[in-house]
Amino acid sequence: MSSSHAARFDVLGIGNAIVDVLAPVDEVFITRHEMRKGSMTLIDAARAEAIYAAMPPAQETSGGCAANTCAAAAGLGARVAYFGRVADDQLGAVFRHDIAAAGVRFPTEPLIGGAPTARCMILVTPDGQRTMNTYLGACTAFTTAQVDEAVVADAAVTYLEGYLYDDPAAQEAFRHAAATAHRAGRKVALTLSDSFCVDRHRAAFLELVRSHVDILFANELEICSLYQSSDIAAAVARTRAEVALGVITRGEDGSLAVRGQETVEVPAEPTRVIDTTGAGDVYAAGFLAALTAGRSLESCARLGGIAAAEIISHFGARLQRDLRGELTRLG
Amino acid sequence: MSSSHAARFDVLGIGNAIVDVLAPVDEVFITRHEMRKGSMTLIDAARAEAIYAAMPPAQETSGGCAANTCAAAAGLGARVAYFGRVADDQLGAVFRHDIAAAGVRFPTEPLIGGAPTARCMILVTPDGQRTMNTYLGACTAFTTAQVDEAVVADAAVTYLEGYLYDDPAAQEAFRHAAATAHRAGRKVALTLSDSFCVDRHRAAFLELVRSHVDILFANELEICSLYQSSDIAAAVARTRAEVALGVITRGEDGSLAVRGQETVEVPAEPTRVIDTTGAGDVYAAGFLAALTAGRSLESCARLGGIAAAEIISHFGARLQRDLRGELTRLG
Repeated sequence: MSSSHAARFDVLGIGNAIVDVLAPVDEVFITRHEMRKGSMTLIDAARAEAIYAAMPPAQETSGGCAANTCAAAAGLGARVAYFGRVADDQLGAVFRHDIAAAGVRFPTEPLIGGAPTARCMILVTPDGQRTMNTYLGACTAFTTAQVDEAVVADAAVTYLEGYLYDDPAAQEAFRHAAATAHRAGRKVALTLSDSFCVDRHRAAFLELVRSHVDILFANELEICSLYQSSDIAAAVARTRAEVALGVITRGEDGSLAVRGQETVEVPAEPTRVIDTTGAGDVYAAGFLAALTAGRSLESCARLGGIAAAEIISHFGARLQRDLRGELTRLG
Repeated sequence: MSSSHAARFDVLGIGNAIVDVLAPVDEVFITRHEMRKGSMTLIDAARAEAIYAAMPPAQETSGGCAANTCAAAAGLGARVAYFGRVADDQLGAVFRHDIAAAGVRFPTEPLIGGAPTARCMILVTPDGQRTMNTYLGACTAFTTAQVDEAVVADAAVTYLEGYLYDDPAAQEAFRHAAATAHRAGRKVALTLSDSFCVDRHRAAFLELVRSHVDILFANELEICSLYQSSDIAAAVARTRAEVALGVITRGEDGSLAVRGQETVEVPAEPTRVIDTTGAGDVYAAGFLAALTAGRSLESCARLGGIAAAEIISHFGARLQRDLRGELTRLG
C-alpha cells in the first residue's frame, strides 16, 4: 500500500447497517409470497410488515455485508472502522453493541425520529437456500454527511458493499468516500454483493470499477454478470485489465486473485458446510487483513479461505472461533 | 381432566416474557463479572447495561420458560394461550411475533411508557454451561389485572413457571390465576424453573404445591431442593404424597411420573446433545399436549421425551422439526 502516512485503520467498511431476522420456511412460503428464491429483494415498510407477520418464529443477529467483513477482519487482528446508519431504537442498539463488541470502531451517529433500523428477513428453505427481503429503513439516511473524511483518510483500505448502490443517497456517499480515500493516497475496495444487485446497476458498476476501484471482490456469478459473459476465463481477463487487484471466490473450488501479470489460485480449505451465509464477506475480511499487513497475494487468499471455512461450518455470518493467530501462522 | 365444560384451550402458560440475548464467553468473563456459573440471576437496568456492554456480539431469540413450553405445545398440536408482559417496543414486537407465529394466542396488552421488554443475557462457557442474567423490565408490570379470567376458565391446564415468584406482583397474579382455574374446575400445573429459584422461595413453593398445584414439573435438583433432601427416592415419595401428579425429569436417565399409586418410568430418547437449553420446558410441552389429549401417563412421558430430544439436538429452545404427527403415532 502506498499512502501519505501510516494509516490508523487497516480497513474502513461502509455499508447497510442491518439486523438479520432469520427463519426456516417451506417452498410454498416462497411461492405464495411471490419471492425469487436465492435473491435479495428490497421491500418497503408495508411489505416488511406483511412478510414478518407471515413468518415463523425467528432469530435476530447483526448482519450487513460490509459489517460482516469488518467484524471478521477485527477478529483476525486488523484495526477496523465502520460507517453505516442505524436508528436510535432497540435494534439499532443491538447492531451498535455487536459491531463494537467485535472490536470495530463505529462512529456513525444514529438517525433520530426517522425510519427504524433496517432489517433483512432471511427465509431458509429446506434445500439450504436463502431468500432475503431487506427493508432499508434508517440506511436510506446514510448520505455524504455520514462520511467522516478524517477516518477515510486514515484507513489503508476503504471497503464498499455493492448494496449501497440500491439507494441514490448512499451511491453519492460511496463516490464521495472513494474520492476522499484516493486524495489521501489510500485504496478503495468494492464487493459486488450479489448478481441481482449487479444486474440492477451494471452500467454504474462498470464505470465505478474502471474509474474508482483498486480492489474488486466478486464471486463467479457476480463477475460474469458484471461483464455479461458466460465464460469465467473471459470475465477474469476483463477483471485483470480493468482493476489493479481482482479477487474471485469460487465456492468449493477455492479462490483466484489477479494483479497485473500475477495470478494466484488457492484451493478451498476443507470443512463441513453448514451454512454459506457470509462466506464471501468473511473471505474478504481475511484477504484484506493479510493485504494490509503487507502479506503476499497467496497469504491473502489463504487467510480469506481459512476465515470463509470457519464461517460456513456453523450458522450465522460472524466468526465463532478465535482466528487471531492465523495471520502469524501463515507467515 | 374433569371440568365444567369442554375447554377452548388445552394449555394456558403464564410466565416472564423474555427475549434471550445469547453469546459465547470464556471462564474469565464469568469470574470477572462475579457471576455464579450455571445459575439464573436477577439484575437491574444498570447491571444489565454493564453486562451487555462487556458481552461479545450476541444472537437474540424469544425465550422465557412458560413461553418455550407454550410454543412447543402448539407445535405438537395443542391449543395454547399465553399471558406475559412485554413493552410497546421493538423487542416486545419480536416476542409477540414469535409466540403468535408459533400458533399461541397471546392476548396480554403491552406495557406503554414503562420499563422496556425483559431480556435474559445467556453466557455460554466452553464447557457448554449457561449462566443467565435476567433484567425483568416490563415483566414486573404483570399483575392480576393481566390475568384474563375468561381465558383461565377456558383452559384445561394453567401452567405457571416458578420464576414468576421472583416478583411480588407476579406472585399475586399467580395465586389469582390458580384460584380462577380451580373455580372453573380446571387444573393448575407448576414448573419449579431452577433449583436456585426454589432456594429463594422454598416456603412459598411448599405451601403452593400442597394447596394449589395439581401437576408439578421438576428436575432432580429442583425436587431435591424443594424437599431439602439429597435422596431422590425420598423426594419422589414426598411428591407423590403432596401433588396429584408429579413429573420428574432426569436428563439422560429419562423421566418419571407419579400419580397416586401409579408410577411410570420412561428412558430418554436417543439423540446427540448439542444444547440442553429449554429441555425441561419442552418436555413439559410434550407431556401436557398428551395429557390434555387424554393419553396415558406413559404416552405423556414419551411425548415429553421425544420433544426434549428434538430441542437438545440443536441450539435454541424452540422446536425446529415438525412433531405434529408424534401424538397420533404414539396412539
